[in-house]
Amino acid sequence: MTATYDVVAIGNAIVDVIARADDAFIAENNLAKGSMQLLFTTEEAEALYDRMGPGIETSGGSAANTLAGLAALGLTCGFIGQVADDQLGRVFTHDMTAQGVAFTTAPRPGDPPTARCLIVVTPDGQRTMNTFLGASQFLPAAALDGQLIADAAILYLEGYLWDPEEPRAAMRQAIATARGAGRRVAFTLSDVFCIERHRADFLRLIADGEIDILFANENELLSLEQADGFEAAIASLSARVPLLVVTRGEHGAVAIKGGERAEVAAEPVDQVVDTTGAGDLFAAGFLAGQAQGRTLRDSLTMGAICAAEVIAHVGPRPQADIKALVAARLD
Amino acid sequence: MTATYDVVAIGNAIVDVIARADDAFIAENNLAKGSMQLLFTTEEAEALYDRMGPGIETSGGSAANTLAGLAALGLTCGFIGQVADDQLGRVFTHDMTAQGVAFTTAPRPGDPPTARCLIVVTPDGQRTMNTFLGASQFLPAAALDGQLIADAAILYLEGYLWDPEEPRAAMRQAIATARGAGRRVAFTLSDVFCIERHRADFLRLIADGEIDILFANENELLSLEQADGFEAAIASLSARVPLLVVTRGEHGAVAIKGGERAEVAAEPVDQVVDTTGAGDLFAAGFLAGQAQGRTLRDSLTMGAICAAEVIAHVGPRPQADIKALVAARLD
Repeated sequence: MTATYDVVAIGNAIVDVIARADDAFIAENNLAKGSMQLLFTTEEAEALYDRMGPGIETSGGSAANTLAGLAALGLTCGFIGQVADDQLGRVFTHDMTAQGVAFTTAPRPGDPPTARCLIVVTPDGQRTMNTFLGASQFLPAAALDGQLIADAAILYLEGYLWDPEEPRAAMRQAIATARGAGRRVAFTLSDVFCIERHRADFLRLIADGEIDILFANENELLSLEQADGFEAAIASLSARVPLLVVTRGEHGAVAIKGGERAEVAAEPVDQVVDTTGAGDLFAAGFLAGQAQGRTLRDSLTMGAICAAEVIAHVGPRPQADIKALVAARLD
Repeated sequence: MTATYDVVAIGNAIVDVIARADDAFIAENNLAKGSMQLLFTTEEAEALYDRMGPGIETSGGSAANTLAGLAALGLTCGFIGQVADDQLGRVFTHDMTAQGVAFTTAPRPGDPPTARCLIVVTPDGQRTMNTFLGASQFLPAAALDGQLIADAAILYLEGYLWDPEEPRAAMRQAIATARGAGRRVAFTLSDVFCIERHRADFLRLIADGEIDILFANENELLSLEQADGFEAAIASLSARVPLLVVTRGEHGAVAIKGGERAEVAAEPVDQVVDTTGAGDLFAAGFLAGQAQGRTLRDSLTMGAICAAEVIAHVGPRPQADIKALVAARLD
């Protein structure tokens, strides 16, 4: 059956709080620079927030950022994720629907509040993320809109959401629904620490053929494969997924589909202001290219264009017209 | 007595929601481009928010933005303003205190929620503001910290807050406290529509000698004086206030103190991204200069440097190190 949605994603429904700090702040607070760590209690989240400088708030969440990019590129999208019935939940919901993304997961009443990610951006533009999952960790399988998933050409899942139990179960059910409807499943490995927590699950999903399109950055690839060499890891993993996409930061990106391999360089950026959302927007550009029937190489270029836009400003979602940026280059 | 604070301000405690839109959106929604209009009901605020695109949230409020600038320039500051006991109120409070600004006004329980300003930024960088005053309009005179006001060299007041009754009464009481302690009172006229609503009050404050330092932009000056000519209005108003500061956007700024007059050009900016906070940060730079005993001309230059920084990015508070920018130029 023809899909009525291009991409439906399941992900954390998070509001980002972004503040600048120097490397000493990272060290003093034992943060994992460049990675994502979980904050498990409200107290822990509030204590770190108290120590952070003034911030800006903006809707975030890895898969949700990717959808924001996909919608900006003209694709038809839906989102499934859990907010609380509070002000930050309404901000998140507004920002999703204001872009035309279908988002109907009902807010969850009571505590905990909507998830937030406390992001510290150092002078080198790197982001260090500290996530309080709040309501997001309670996305139940019952909240899935099975019809929406079955109607989408691609189901996109974020590895970060594999941490909490209920969303993990929901994602397993969603995979079954998508595959039952003959749809493709895309998955992002999200983060090295996330892989360390869930390597066995991720490897099993791949071995079982549940993942059609896999996104990883170089460190995630090496971590998943527990390999030292990039080419060896690429060779091993690409043999087990139909389409593998690996981003390498300033060194560009690689995609391998069956025997075909394509590579692109990173797009030039005047100044890297904040790398938050770089991987998410790369995935958006690449998936949009694939949905539009473009070559592997052009899809990678679209990913690189979108990633370059998002790292040139504070915040994880595009501010410039990325559709126009792509058209100026490729059309 | 020596002041322990350089500046204490009373102002709206507002979280800004900033979204981009084209001029057609301004017209379709009957917004007053470049000005501030009040949204009187939650429904009105929500209806406009629903129509706006995805946004970013950041602490705002005119006098609060000025304090953010003053604190970044190294001054000792305090803030008095009313938030609600909700998530946005905690964001506002965090951002104020994270900069070292003393802010002890207790949150107000229950409805209405913390104030928000829905700001539409058009491609020319101009901001059009739509303010739902929420809890901010209920700042009672009883919430004033009289000791804090008496301990501050300058009491800074924003004209916007003259609209609601309770804060207006609070500001009148604060003026009496400050003057009783031998302190100076600074006032910003805020907005032409605001002057149209309160011209008689503002003229009376000036006539009664309650205002020592008056900030206005060119349009506000002409509106207050109901004059056509800039020089005639300057001559008339500067005769009635000890220190008058008039900003003229891209045409620079003028200050007149007694018989002395100084002028500066605007600082060059690569691209005007968002003019939100331009006047607020100009006031911060100028007041900091005055507090540091600088000349009128150098104080104006500090205002121009701070305004140029804030219009080069989205959001009404400085992101670069404005203290270093000033030092590089003047020290």
